[in-house]
Amino acid sequence: MGALSVATSLWYAWRLGSIDAGDQKMREVAGYIREGADAFLRAEIEIMAVGTALLALIILLAAGWQNAVSFIVGSVSSALAGYVGLETSLKANVRTAAMALKGGIKPAFSTAYQGGKVMGFFVVGIALIGIGTLYLLFRDPLQIVGYMFGASLMSLLLRVGGGIYTKGADIGSDLVGKVEAGIPEDDPRNPGVIADNVGDNVGDCVGMGADLFETYAVTVITAMLLGYLLKGGVAYEVMPLYLASISVIATLIGSYFVIPSQKRIMNAFYRGLAASAVLSLAADYLIFGHDFGLYSAVIIGTLVLIAMYVFAEYFTSYEFKPVRKVAERSQTGAALNIITGMANGLKSTLFPVLIVSVAVLAVFVLNGGLSSSLGDGIYAIAISAVAMMSLVGIVISIDTFGPIADNAGGIAEMAGLPKTVREGVTDVLDSVGNTTKATTKAYAIASAALASLSLFAGFELELPKWMLSQVLVSDPLVLVGMFIGGVIPFVFTALLMDGVGVAAFGIVKEIRRQFRIKGVPEGTVKPGYAACVNITTKVALRELALPAILAAGTPVLVGLVLGPLGLSGYMFGAIVTGFPIAIWMTTGGGAWDNAKKYVESGFYGGKNSEAHKAAVIGDTVGDATKDTAGPAVNPFIKVMVTVSVLFAPITSLRQSR
Amino acid sequence: MGALSVATSLWYAWRLGSIDAGDQKMREVAGYIREGADAFLRAEIEIMAVGTALLALIILLAAGWQNAVSFIVGSVSSALAGYVGLETSLKANVRTAAMALKGGIKPAFSTAYQGGKVMGFFVVGIALIGIGTLYLLFRDPLQIVGYMFGASLMSLLLRVGGGIYTKGADIGSDLVGKVEAGIPEDDPRNPGVIADNVGDNVGDCVGMGADLFETYAVTVITAMLLGYLLKGGVAYEVMPLYLASISVIATLIGSYFVIPSQKRIMNAFYRGLAASAVLSLAADYLIFGHDFGLYSAVIIGTLVLIAMYVFAEYFTSYEFKPVRKVAERSQTGAALNIITGMANGLKSTLFPVLIVSVAVLAVFVLNGGLSSSLGDGIYAIAISAVAMMSLVGIVISIDTFGPIADNAGGIAEMAGLPKTVREGVTDVLDSVGNTTKATTKAYAIASAALASLSLFAGFELELPKWMLSQVLVSDPLVLVGMFIGGVIPFVFTALLMDGVGVAAFGIVKEIRRQFRIKGVPEGTVKPGYAACVNITTKVALRELALPAILAAGTPVLVGLVLGPLGLSGYMFGAIVTGFPIAIWMTTGGGAWDNAKKYVESGFYGGKNSEAHKAAVIGDTVGDATKDTAGPAVNPFIKVMVTVSVLFAPITSLRQSR
Repeated sequence: MGALSVATSLWYAWRLGSIDAGDQKMREVAGYIREGADAFLRAEIEIMAVGTALLALIILLAAGWQNAVSFIVGSVSSALAGYVGLETSLKANVRTAAMALKGGIKPAFSTAYQGGKVMGFFVVGIALIGIGTLYLLFRDPLQIVGYMFGASLMSLLLRVGGGIYTKGADIGSDLVGKVEAGIPEDDPRNPGVIADNVGDNVGDCVGMGADLFETYAVTVITAMLLGYLLKGGVAYEVMPLYLASISVIATLIGSYFVIPSQKRIMNAFYRGLAASAVLSLAADYLIFGHDFGLYSAVIIGTLVLIAMYVFAEYFTSYEFKPVRKVAERSQTGAALNIITGMANGLKSTLFPVLIVSVAVLAVFVLNGGLSSSLGDGIYAIAISAVAMMSLVGIVISIDTFGPIADNAGGIAEMAGLPKTVREGVTDVLDSVGNTTKATTKAYAIASAALASLSLFAGFELELPKWMLSQVLVSDPLVLVGMFIGGVIPFVFTALLMDGVGVAAFGIVKEIRRQFRIKGVPEGTVKPGYAACVNITTKVALRELALPAILAAGTPVLVGLVLGPLGLSGYMFGAIVTGFPIAIWMTTGGGAWDNAKKYVESGFYGGKNSEAHKAAVIGDTVGDATKDTAGPAVNPFIKVMVTVSVLFAPITSLRQSR
Repeated sequence: MGALSVATSLWYAWRLGSIDAGDQKMREVAGYIREGADAFLRAEIEIMAVGTALLALIILLAAGWQNAVSFIVGSVSSALAGYVGLETSLKANVRTAAMALKGGIKPAFSTAYQGGKVMGFFVVGIALIGIGTLYLLFRDPLQIVGYMFGASLMSLLLRVGGGIYTKGADIGSDLVGKVEAGIPEDDPRNPGVIADNVGDNVGDCVGMGADLFETYAVTVITAMLLGYLLKGGVAYEVMPLYLASISVIATLIGSYFVIPSQKRIMNAFYRGLAASAVLSLAADYLIFGHDFGLYSAVIIGTLVLIAMYVFAEYFTSYEFKPVRKVAERSQTGAALNIITGMANGLKSTLFPVLIVSVAVLAVFVLNGGLSSSLGDGIYAIAISAVAMMSLVGIVISIDTFGPIADNAGGIAEMAGLPKTVREGVTDVLDSVGNTTKATTKAYAIASAALASLSLFAGFELELPKWMLSQVLVSDPLVLVGMFIGGVIPFVFTALLMDGVGVAAFGIVKEIRRQFRIKGVPEGTVKPGYAACVNITTKVALRELALPAILAAGTPVLVGLVLGPLGLSGYMFGAIVTGFPIAIWMTTGGGAWDNAKKYVESGFYGGKNSEAHKAAVIGDTVGDATKDTAGPAVNPFIKVMVTVSVLFAPITSLRQSR
C-alpha cells in the first residue's frame, strides 16, 4: 500500500513536470528561488547528517543496533519527505503561475493542488514502506521506536530551521519594503524578496510536510507499540498498519472529489475530505467491525478531526466574530489589535482541549471503562489517533496547495506578469491557503495531543512494575518534574520567536544598507538577493542548536537527575502546557492574518488606512507565532517523549529510591 | 502582634494626615480622583456584598457555620485592606506632590513611603487579628478554611475589577491623548485623565494590597492546616502564627533602614528588606532553633525571596540585556518590539520555576526525604512559604510607594505645578516604582506557587485514604482533569485582556467624541471627566462576573463531573500552567515598560522617534499583561484551590468508582 502511494505520487509528479513552466523571465525568478532553497536545505541536511550519525552511535550503545537502524531509516525518510516537498513545490509554483496566466483560476488551482498531491501521497507512502519493512524485519515494535525518534527529531529541525528562515525573511523584507519604502510585496526591487520566497518553500512546504510525516509515523508506531505492550497479540500490532493502509485507497479516491466550484473553493476541499472520511470509515469496518469499542474509537477520531476543522475555521476566518473584533479594534492602533488578538488566541485554547478531553473520556468509557488506567482504553486512544491521521494524505495535499499558490503569486509579481494574474487568481488561491493552513495546524495539533498521550502511556509501561503505582501527582519528584516540564514549551517557543527576531533584524539592516545604494530603490540596479539569503540561512542554522538540545537533551538530564518519576511528571507537564501554547500561537496568528485581510477588503478604511497599519503589525507578530513557534511545539513534544521511551531502560536504572 | 501592627499603621496614617495637602487647585484635582475612586470601590463592594451573602449561605449548608463565619470575616478583612489602601493612597498622593513642590526628592520620598507603610502594616495586622481570633474561637484550622476562600475571592474580584479599570482607562486615554492628539500624559485637557488616575488607585494600590493580603492569609492558614492534618499537634498549628507575628517586629525595625541615599533609591529599599530579613531569621531561631529541618525551610524561603528579586530585576530593569534588546529591536517598528518582548517574557519563566523547584526539592530532602509524599516535607514547604510571606509588611510598604508617586506626578501635572516637580522628583520616584512593582509581583507569584502547592496537598489530605493512592498521573480522570485545568489560566487571562480591550475601546470612542467638541482639545472648555469614569466603572464591574464564575464555579463543576480524581488533576494542571503564565505576563510587561523608558532616556532617537513610537505600543500591550492579566492569576488559582478544599467533602461524596 505504501508502494501504491509512492507510485501515485511519482505519477502526479511526472504529470506536473509535463506542464508548461512559463516564459524566460519566470524561469529565471524560479531559478533564483530554487538556488537559495536548495542551498539552505543542503546545508541543513549536512548538519543533520553529522548529528544523526552521532546519535545513531549513542542509540546503538543504549538501545541496540535495531533501534539505531530504525533511527537512521526514520531520519532519512523524514529528510526525504522534506526534500520531495521542496522539489514539488519548486516545480509546481512556476507552473501554477504559468497556468494562471494562460487559463485563469481553474487550471491554476488544479496545478497547485496536483503539487499538493505529490507531497501528500509521497509522505504517506514513504512512511508505510519504512515502518512496514522494519516491522517485517524485526517483528518487534519496541525496535522501531528509533524510527519515531529519527522522524520527530528530523522534523523538529526542519520545522525550526525552516520556520526561523521563512519568517525572518518575510518579516524583515516586509518591514523595510512594504512599511518603510512603500513598495508592494514580492517587488523585485526589494533585496529580501528572494529570501522571502525561498522561505515560503523551506518553511511552509518542507516544514509542514516533515511535521505531518512525523505525526503520522509516530501515531502509527505508537499504536503498534501499545498493541504489543498492552494487548500482546500480533493482530493488535499490525492493526494500525492495516488501518493506515486501507485509508490510502480511500483518500486516493476521495482526492478526486476536490472539484473547484464557482462559489467557494474551500468547499471543494471539504467535499474531498468528507468523501475520504466516509470511504475510510466504511473500509475500517472491515478491520474493526468485530470490535465495537475499537470501531467507536475510529469514529471518535474522525469526529475530532471534523470538530477541529470547525473550531479552527471559526477562530481564524473573517466570516466570524473573533477575527472581526480584532479588525475593529485595529482602528485604535496596533496596541489594541495585539491585545485583542492575544486574548482571542488564548481564549481559543479552551475548545480543542475540551474536544480532546471529551474524546479521551468517551474512548475510555467505550473501551473497558474509566478505571483501566493503562489498559484497553489507552490502546483505543492510540487507534483513534491513527484513524485521525490516516486521512493525512489528502490533508497534506490540501495544505501544500497554499504555499504553492502563495509562491506562484510571488513569481507572477517578480516576473512582471499582468496584475490580473495576481489579483484575480493567485491572491484568491492564497487566501484559501490561509484557511487551509490554520485548519491543518489545528488537525496536526489535536492528533499530536492524542499521539503524545498514548506515547506517554508507552513510557509508563516501560517503567518497572513496582514503580508504576508510584507516579502519584503528589509525589515531590513527579511534582517538580511537572513544574519543570510545564515551563519548557514556554522557553522553547521563546527561543524560536527570538530566532525570528534575530533573523528579521539582520535582514532589515541589510535591506536598509542596500536601499542606500543609488539605483536599488529605483529598480535600475539589481539588488543583492544573495546577501539576504545568506543572512537568513546562517541565522536559521545557528538557531537550530538550542531548541534541538532542549528537546533531546533535557529529558535525559531530567531522567538522570530526578529519575523516572521526575521524568514522568516532566513529560506530562510539557504535554499539558505545550498543547494550549501551540493552539494559542497558531489560531491567534491566523486570526491576526485574516483581520488584516478583512481590513484590506475595505473595512475600517481599507488598505493604507491607520487601521490597516495597525493590522499589519498584528499580522507580523502573528507570523512569528503561527508559522514558527506554534507549529514547532508538536515535533518538539514528540521528540521529548520518544527520547524518554527510547532511553527509559537507562534512566530507570537509577531507580531513585 | 496584629494589634501592634494595626496600631503602627494608624499612627502612620495620623502622621500622614498632618502633612500639608497642597494648594486649592491640587486639592480640587485630588477631590475628583477621590470621587471617582470612592464611587467605583463602593459599587464594587456593593456587588460583592450580595455575592458574599449568597456564598456564605451555601458554605453554611455545605461546610458548617464556622466556615461561613470565617468566610465573612475573610471577605470583610480583604475589602477593608483594599479600602484602607485606597484611602491612604488618596491621602498620600496629594501630600507627596505638595512635599515635592516644597522640599524636593527626600521629603516627597518619605511621604510616599510613609503612605506605603500605613498600607503594609495594616494588611499584616488585620490578617493576624482575624486569623488569631478565629483560631482562638474554633481551635480548628479546618474551620478557618472559609477565611482563605473569602480573602482570595474578594482579592480576586478587587484585582480583576481594579485591573480592568486601571488599564482600560490608562490605555484608552493614552491612545487618544498621547498618541493621536500629542498632548502629554495626565494633561487636564484629556477627558480620560481622571479615570486614568482613579485607575492607578483602584488598580495598583487596592489590587496589589488585596492580593498580598490574600497570599499572606492563605499562606499562614495553609501552614496551620497542614500542621493539624499532618503533624497533629497544637504546637505545629500555631507555629506559623508565631512565625508571622515575630516578623512584624522585625519588619517594623527593618522599615527604618530605608533611608534614601543620593545615588540609587532602590538600594534604600534593599537595605530595609535585608535588615528585616536578617532580623526575622534571627528571631525565627527562637521558634525553630530546635528543629533543624524546619529552620532550614525558613532559610530557604528567605533565599527564594532574594532570588526572585534578583530574577525580576534582571529581566525588567534596563540596566540589563533583555530590556535593552527589546529597545534595540524597536528601531525596526512595533512588530519586532512585540515579538522580542514576548520572547523575553516567555523565556524568563524558566528561572522562577527552577528556583522554586530547587527550593521544593531542598526542603523535602532536609525534612524527611523525597519519599515522604505527603509527610513532613510538605509541612516544611508551607513553613518556608510563611517565612517568605512574613516580610510582607515591608514589601507592601515598598510596593505601595510606587503608585503613590505615580499619582503625585499626575496631580502635579493637572494642578499645573512647575515642570521641575514632575521631571525632577515624581518621575524619578515613579521609575523606581516600576522596578518595585515588578519585584513585588515576582515575590507574590513565587510565594503563591509555594502556597498553592501546599494547599493542594491540603486538598489531597481531605480525600478518603483509599483514594489517595489512586491519584496517578496516568489515570484517565486525572489526565483529563489536568488537561482541562491546564487550559483554564489561558482562558482566564484572555478574559481579562479582553476586558481591558473593551474598556479601552469605549474610552477611546468617548474621548474622540469629546475632542470633536470645540474648546475641549484647546483647553478652554472643561472636558467631561465623569463620562469616562462611568464607562470604565461600568465595563470593569460587568467583566467581573465571568472570571469569578470561572474561578469559583469550575472546580465544583469538575469535582461533580469528574470526581475528586479529576479535580486533583484539574488543580494541578492549573498550577502548572498558571505559574509560568503569571511570570511571563508580568516580567514581559515590565520589560516592555522599561524598554520604552530606555528609549526615552535618549537611545535610538529618544522621545518621539520611530523607535519610541514602537516602544509605546509594546508598553501598552505590556500594560494589559502586567497590570491586569498576569497578577490576577495568583488569587485566581488560590480561589480555585480553596474552593476545592472547602467543598472536598461534597465532591468526594460522589466517589466516582
